[in-house]
Amino acid sequence: MSFNLIKEDKKSDARLGKIKTKHGMIKTPCFMTIATCGSVKSLDSIELKKMKAQIVLGNTYHLYLRPTDKLIKKFGGLHKFMNWNGPILTDSGGYQVFSLAKTRKITEEGAEFKSHINGSIHMLTPEKSIEIQQNLGSDIVMVLDECAPYPAEKKYIDESLELTTRWAQRCKKYFDKKNLKLKKNERALLFGIVQGGTYKDLREKSAKQLLEIDFDGFAIGGVSVGEPSKKMFQAVDCTAPLLPKDKPRYLMGVGKPEEVVGAVARGIDMFDCVIPTRNARHGTIYKFTTQSDIINISKNPKMFYKIVHIKNEKFKSDKKPIDHNCSCFTCQNYSRAYLRHLFASKELLAMRLASIHNIHFYLELMRKIRNSV
Amino acid sequence: MSFNLIKEDKKSDARLGKIKTKHGMIKTPCFMTIATCGSVKSLDSIELKKMKAQIVLGNTYHLYLRPTDKLIKKFGGLHKFMNWNGPILTDSGGYQVFSLAKTRKITEEGAEFKSHINGSIHMLTPEKSIEIQQNLGSDIVMVLDECAPYPAEKKYIDESLELTTRWAQRCKKYFDKKNLKLKKNERALLFGIVQGGTYKDLREKSAKQLLEIDFDGFAIGGVSVGEPSKKMFQAVDCTAPLLPKDKPRYLMGVGKPEEVVGAVARGIDMFDCVIPTRNARHGTIYKFTTQSDIINISKNPKMFYKIVHIKNEKFKSDKKPIDHNCSCFTCQNYSRAYLRHLFASKELLAMRLASIHNIHFYLELMRKIRNSV
Repeated sequence: MSFNLIKEDKKSDARLGKIKTKHGMIKTPCFMTIATCGSVKSLDSIELKKMKAQIVLGNTYHLYLRPTDKLIKKFGGLHKFMNWNGPILTDSGGYQVFSLAKTRKITEEGAEFKSHINGSIHMLTPEKSIEIQQNLGSDIVMVLDECAPYPAEKKYIDESLELTTRWAQRCKKYFDKKNLKLKKNERALLFGIVQGGTYKDLREKSAKQLLEIDFDGFAIGGVSVGEPSKKMFQAVDCTAPLLPKDKPRYLMGVGKPEEVVGAVARGIDMFDCVIPTRNARHGTIYKFTTQSDIINISKNPKMFYKIVHIKNEKFKSDKKPIDHNCSCFTCQNYSRAYLRHLFASKELLAMRLASIHNIHFYLELMRKIRNSV
Repeated sequence: MSFNLIKEDKKSDARLGKIKTKHGMIKTPCFMTIATCGSVKSLDSIELKKMKAQIVLGNTYHLYLRPTDKLIKKFGGLHKFMNWNGPILTDSGGYQVFSLAKTRKITEEGAEFKSHINGSIHMLTPEKSIEIQQNLGSDIVMVLDECAPYPAEKKYIDESLELTTRWAQRCKKYFDKKNLKLKKNERALLFGIVQGGTYKDLREKSAKQLLEIDFDGFAIGGVSVGEPSKKMFQAVDCTAPLLPKDKPRYLMGVGKPEEVVGAVARGIDMFDCVIPTRNARHGTIYKFTTQSDIINISKNPKMFYKIVHIKNEKFKSDKKPIDHNCSCFTCQNYSRAYLRHLFASKELLAMRLASIHNIHFYLELMRKIRNSV
């Protein structure tokens, strides 16, 4: 088994677990830092390791287009290419095809799209997505799904999830062909993605179909494309209970710190989100408001953090670190005033120092959560 | 004495020395990494320390305008503000007034200029420049000089250097007032700047006048404003011999690696230049072509390095580090192909990794030079 369920919370559906990958163990609940193009923006892989990031997420769409998965394969995979020897999850590329590509056309075969970089035409099929992810040497491979827009007609969502299921079958078949030939400790994991929007019956249908195919883990998809918290939790509420206890559950693209806690309380094990890094680059910084090592795991948690807009004038001469209880490199070495000055002067270092802090915050959040289950 | 002359080269005018500052000793010949706005672009002060950078250069013009010297003074100086406890040299602000400010007007009193940031009007007098640098807590303070454009009429250069001398006198007077009250180990050093373009008689006149005022060190100014190597060396050739042996000599704004070696052979001890960091950010990277720990110190050195344009297509699948003999963080951890990919993808990390390498190259160059005297 690639997943060990270690403990279940008494008061909520939260769980403690461990996922075994070919690049080591991941303690769950966990947060995956996003390394879009093979780097966590502004950070190097060595400092990421020092920060005890457990796993990073690489974007198949980006890496396929540049530098290409074929090139990365020649390097022995993304781990070696970016010098990161911990686990890597790769997405299917589907999300970026829907959100970033210039145009796209969905057929039974797959998604034809126009590159946002140079307008070249590409075809992403379920098989192609798996092939790319295998070339990247991914530890956790995601099936290709259609990311339905939000909001969308029920009929559209229904047809979309049926297509997603057929794609998932093709992914599984293609994935197994190569993966099952490998030694057990070299095998990747394949996750299915439950779709169905906010419709309980559709989520049930999707989950049922995917469970039949059988995957190493299950993701809940289609919740981050502009969906508000409430709708997102509706989708989680009607999906998580349908998923097997002995498989990890991944809520894609989520989310704000309180959303992460709320989803953990609903039984989610894995998260990824651009929030900590993207916000950092804009000077939006997270800070715990409690020193406690325990987070109250609840579907609707009390606020335990605040947001600091470090560019604000009021930090101009503030000698304190962002958070004097924080052990991150930034807080150990630099003041709010210095950080504010770097942002005001558009110094590159600003984005890195803020990113380090926000990633540390999310990793700490997950540690506190694991501590609290 | 703030300068110890340790050794003189037999074959050239090169010297080994040590400069004592209130933040520690600097081995010369040395290169000063530029921390324009209180950060070496894309690097943090801790990694700079680990790289064994001896001293950084802060820009008075920039820091005066933002975050202001008054603010930095409240933090106990630039050292504490940027968390760098090694020596800092600050320029006078003059060079940026001439090169960066929107408009400027030079009078006997000083230089009135319009900020490039918000168009506000400021007056930089010799006294003001010293006051700012003292507020910054600089270890090595530079006098305000007029940076004559290149090329310029001899008459203009002559009048300009006379003004520079009068400003130097006012700087010295203002500097001593505060500096002499301090304990000896808390005192800063004040450097004069010899002007006179490429005119031997004018350089002599400027040097003579400045020597009479007496400074802790002497800089050769006016050589980097668009001056070609040959002209620059002409200025050094006619100036360096006029300077006292027992004081450090600083060639401002220079230069390319071979220029640094050529100037060391002419008796220069200190350098600063944007080349390693600016070029790095554009993917232009330095690499020694010899593994030798010795540099042939000569006025016209044989080439000992080459330039790598890392964005070049030919590095696309190059698994080697930039330089397999290099011990810098970048070469120890990442391939040319990865670096090229980061530049192609406009990833922030590209600029940092390239800057680390180029700064390391310059620091290594100085170490090799010191090794060779």
